[in-house]
Amino acid sequence: MINVVLLGAGNVATHLFKAFTNTEAVTVKQWYNRNLKTIAEYKNKVAITDNLEDLVEADIYILAVSDDAIADLSEKLPFTNRLVVHTSGSVSLYAIDKKHKRGVFYPLQTFSKGASVDFSKVPLCIEAHKVKEDFSILKELAEAIGSQPHKVNSDQRAALHLAAVFVNNFTNQIYRIAHEITESEGAEFDILKPLIQETARKLDDLSPFLAQTGPAKRNDKKTIKKHLNALTNAHHKDVYELLTQSIQKTHSPFVNPKAKPNK
Amino acid sequence: MINVVLLGAGNVATHLFKAFTNTEAVTVKQWYNRNLKTIAEYKNKVAITDNLEDLVEADIYILAVSDDAIADLSEKLPFTNRLVVHTSGSVSLYAIDKKHKRGVFYPLQTFSKGASVDFSKVPLCIEAHKVKEDFSILKELAEAIGSQPHKVNSDQRAALHLAAVFVNNFTNQIYRIAHEITESEGAEFDILKPLIQETARKLDDLSPFLAQTGPAKRNDKKTIKKHLNALTNAHHKDVYELLTQSIQKTHSPFVNPKAKPNK
Ligand SMILES: NC(=O)c1ccc[n+]([C@@H]2O[C@H](COP(=O)([O-])OP(=O)(O)OC[C@H]3O[C@@H](n4cnc5c(N)ncnc54)[C@H](OP(=O)(O)O)[C@@H]3O)[C@@H](O)[C@H]2O)c1
Ligand SMILES: NC(=O)c1ccc[n+]([C@@H]2O[C@H](COP(=O)([O-])OP(=O)(O)OC[C@H]3O[C@@H](n4cnc5c(N)ncnc54)[C@H](OP(=O)(O)O)[C@@H]3O)[C@@H](O)[C@H]2O)c1
Repeated sequence: MINVVLLGAGNVATHLFKAFTNTEAVTVKQWYNRNLKTIAEYKNKVAITDNLEDLVEADIYILAVSDDAIADLSEKLPFTNRLVVHTSGSVSLYAIDKKHKRGVFYPLQTFSKGASVDFSKVPLCIEAHKVKEDFSILKELAEAIGSQPHKVNSDQRAALHLAAVFVNNFTNQIYRIAHEITESEGAEFDILKPLIQETARKLDDLSPFLAQTGPAKRNDKKTIKKHLNALTNAHHKDVYELLTQSIQKTHSPFVNPKAKPNK
Repeated sequence: MINVVLLGAGNVATHLFKAFTNTEAVTVKQWYNRNLKTIAEYKNKVAITDNLEDLVEADIYILAVSDDAIADLSEKLPFTNRLVVHTSGSVSLYAIDKKHKRGVFYPLQTFSKGASVDFSKVPLCIEAHKVKEDFSILKELAEAIGSQPHKVNSDQRAALHLAAVFVNNFTNQIYRIAHEITESEGAEFDILKPLIQETARKLDDLSPFLAQTGPAKRNDKKTIKKHLNALTNAHHKDVYELLTQSIQKTHSPFVNPKAKPNK
């Protein structure tokens, strides 16, 4: 049985609370938020508090608060030498005050408040300052909610977090541009959805390198020119040009002698 | 029963052949390719030929050949006034010689030779020059293989094809860049796959406009600067900057007074 105290009441904390209370292997002993109102609705399920002095003893303290609040909050915790982790992809492990045993429990997924979360689809990137002492309980905690734990170091976590911005925010913006293009001709964006799904699914079989197709990869200048002429929005043209260049950098050994054809 | 003659033997023709032979409602009466060897392995299942003069009568002739070959091949067909369609997203309906009844049967999906195709996930964009006479049989043909038919005009088809380049080729290149970023720190690209899937899946619930999150949308200048500093590859920086601008164009009413917050 792992005893947890949860701090913060945003997207991540709320989804973690639900996942923890759904498993026998974890008990949320207490839930802290600076603003008690936000968690008042859970008061019959868990001890709630807005007073750091009242915090009870637990195996792990999870700071699921805004990135900027982590350092300050960790410093204010009125105890030492207990395991304190944050859930951020980009904040240093060392932001946590050094009076604690320090760790990171970073769920690499996008959370929205309303929607329910299937933690089997939420990889957990785990870092522990003292790996031998503290890694295994964090791994157990991830496994208890059905997540896949991944041991990462700070550089790897930063790289994953940055890459996540590309595959989540930037990919979604590419979808948005596609929406603008179809809408401008009165075509249904929905017709593209199976292709969007298949493009993501294909990664089960092939690396993005091997999965690439299309005019940029073939260096089909005629089609590229036709597409650029068809794009009436100057900004869409800029994106088309840069990503076409990008594909050619990756796939053309003339432009990029380091292109690795077998990956 | 719809009788079809198939011309061409590439990715699209091969997948269509398999789908047609799997349904009672369609008979492939003949398969033509300029190079008979490519289709020789099917000779026990279907009449094959490399001679246009030998083509038999059918309800629909499907030219699943390279874009550049469509006009020429359609002109060489030794008959008139029969329904001839091509399968291209970008070629004009009028590329088909005007001696024929003309149409387009464009599968909006990415096909690779090896992998099997589930046509229920392949939307079919259908155009017919004589809509009243020829649309319904093309619609029936799509439905016979389990596809969703969509009636489009030429402008809509061109927009969909161009948008498909964005959601397929460009999205895949974004995945590739994420792969390069994770690899450069020895982190596993695979950890990103659930996020990639979820980003695509989210479109079932929300438009790309409403699904957007992250530092660019929040205009979180500190994180954006941190990310740009962390990117060691100049080209990755260019992509980061342009797509961050793109998100801000879409979401910031100051930069783009036409941003529509409710879509
Ligand atoms: N959302 C995601 O998709 C996601 C994914 C992976 C990791 N993360 C990370 O998880 C952490 C939490 O993110 P979130 O999305 O859950 O954030 P959120 O929804 O914005 O919630 C932030 C929480 O932090 C609390 N907080 C803010 N400043 C505080 C302070 N000075 N002292 C005490 N509490 C403070 C807020 O309290 P109030 O309720 O009083 O405002 C709120 O409960 C962040 O480190 C984030 O980077 C987020
Ligand atoms: N692949 C996709 O993902 C996809 C998706 C939607 C639509 N399309 C469209 O479907 C059509 C076919 O694409 P594909 O991917 O199947 O192409 P592909 O795999 O490259 O095959 C092209 C076929 O066209 C034949 N061909 C080329 N030039 C010819 C000529 N001058 N005369 C007669 N036959 C000729 C080739 O014959 P040989 O076998 O003798 O070389 C080959 O059988 C294109 O219009 C394409 O835009 C493709």
